[in-house]
Amino acid sequence: MFAFEPLERPPMRRLAALALVPLIAAQAPTPVKPKTPSEITASAPRTDWREIAAEDLLVFELRGGKKVVMQLAPDFAPVHVANIRALAKAGWWNGSAIYRVQDNYVVQWGNNESDKPFPVGVVAQPPAEYARPAAGLAVTALGSPDSYASRAGFVNGWPVAFHDQEGVANLAHCYAMVGVGRGLSPDTGTGGELYTVIGHAPRHLDRNIAVVGRILQGMEHLTSLPRGTEALGFYKERSSDVPIVGAQLASDLPAAGRPRFEYLGGTSFDAYLHARKNRQDDFFIRPAGGADLCNINVPVRPVPAA
Amino acid sequence: MFAFEPLERPPMRRLAALALVPLIAAQAPTPVKPKTPSEITASAPRTDWREIAAEDLLVFELRGGKKVVMQLAPDFAPVHVANIRALAKAGWWNGSAIYRVQDNYVVQWGNNESDKPFPVGVVAQPPAEYARPAAGLAVTALGSPDSYASRAGFVNGWPVAFHDQEGVANLAHCYAMVGVGRGLSPDTGTGGELYTVIGHAPRHLDRNIAVVGRILQGMEHLTSLPRGTEALGFYKERSSDVPIVGAQLASDLPAAGRPRFEYLGGTSFDAYLHARKNRQDDFFIRPAGGADLCNINVPVRPVPAA
Repeated sequence: MFAFEPLERPPMRRLAALALVPLIAAQAPTPVKPKTPSEITASAPRTDWREIAAEDLLVFELRGGKKVVMQLAPDFAPVHVANIRALAKAGWWNGSAIYRVQDNYVVQWGNNESDKPFPVGVVAQPPAEYARPAAGLAVTALGSPDSYASRAGFVNGWPVAFHDQEGVANLAHCYAMVGVGRGLSPDTGTGGELYTVIGHAPRHLDRNIAVVGRILQGMEHLTSLPRGTEALGFYKERSSDVPIVGAQLASDLPAAGRPRFEYLGGTSFDAYLHARKNRQDDFFIRPAGGADLCNINVPVRPVPAA
Repeated sequence: MFAFEPLERPPMRRLAALALVPLIAAQAPTPVKPKTPSEITASAPRTDWREIAAEDLLVFELRGGKKVVMQLAPDFAPVHVANIRALAKAGWWNGSAIYRVQDNYVVQWGNNESDKPFPVGVVAQPPAEYARPAAGLAVTALGSPDSYASRAGFVNGWPVAFHDQEGVANLAHCYAMVGVGRGLSPDTGTGGELYTVIGHAPRHLDRNIAVVGRILQGMEHLTSLPRGTEALGFYKERSSDVPIVGAQLASDLPAAGRPRFEYLGGTSFDAYLHARKNRQDDFFIRPAGGADLCNINVPVRPVPAA
């Protein structure tokens, strides 16, 4: 199950939903209908799928063998991402835990940093990588207004907000995006405590904190955790913490056992974006004619077997 | 824990978060700082809190005695809401179940309608109550652009999108809002199958389906359920369904045992909205200067004991 899997079927009545398969099978082809987002994704040519580099994939293993795969965003937070890679290589995540689950907000995990010093090579105070120069970013425009920025769009599959007056761009705090917990400024966080968004996009955090990636797979292992009962969703007892066995970069795993993912780009993504904004599936009676940045869900999938 | 509880503390490092209480206690008062959203909520006068009518509160009881309280929205979908009240009065929800949990989308529940005929008084085909005339609605403007509508704002505590060209308004599909599952048009759904939003707002459903309310309390009992593994998040086995013991309107409960809720209105809500758009808490280094409709979280709380 993917965090970014296109959500194709609205809340239909159960009988109607179950009846849908035979219904479609019995229908005559209707070639005049525009393709749905999932049809576009399913029929996209191989050349429109872009593989994610193995050194940008970090695999967390939770208790019970559950895997959570995160994509790193070195183009947006290079020093924080370098920290996270160094932490992974040093085994720093072994024995860490998920200790905060706040409903409609975040799941947060890491180590108690005072008990577990950082390995050599980790920058204790990275720069405030909360935005970057917009220059040089090839963007597919969202084409709908954004409540938080001059404009919004997609850069190499990432949801990005642009602030034209300042000439900067930032990764948006959409569902499943991953940021770096920090203390009060001037602390910028190290990467040793991470969180992911499990509710409506808390975009007010944009440009206030380093966003370093997103969860590609295993999101449901995080979102279905019991909510913490203490203030801010912290678990009351340390025995409630969810143990993290460890984390490894895909590039450090044997080639045969590496997870591989790809995201949709090219003209297929353009068509997908257009179709998401103008839903014409049978269910819809009134296409929205627009969408907000965090309601697009860039298609991501495992690289199919050759 | 409330669905609409203000989310006051961003993803801080654990040590920093835990250290915050003594830190504040030791600080000198700083009267020049604007109030934070939670300070505004905490200090709002009683007269700015508006109690929700008992006939607009529907209490679902899940297996294990867990309660989920829903607020009904008769001003937006009167026939669907009348159906839901009639279903509750007839005990129709007794023995129903949650049967669909799709990550970043919806939790859905109800009966298998073919097995359990509707009680007398339920309208089998309500009108398409997907939007209503905007005329007559007293709105507090959001004041930020909306990706799906001409403008957006709040009406009696509800998040509402306005389509000025058509002169209509609709309840927005924000987190925790409740809609009515339906089949393909012309089916409009009865109210016998409901869903609530558990992820980023699927606003493309706006004006395509009847929105009839929102979850005020117990949202965490729904959001933390295991995700369904079948297509669309349906549970594979009926044995995975989460039983619903029943549902009762608060107005049908003994006065002493009724849940009572109130939402923030008046000038306190105006101030809260302004503060949410311009966060100046210690943590924030760059206020957004805006917000999207579904990231406001109208404050709702149990009516305090007199």
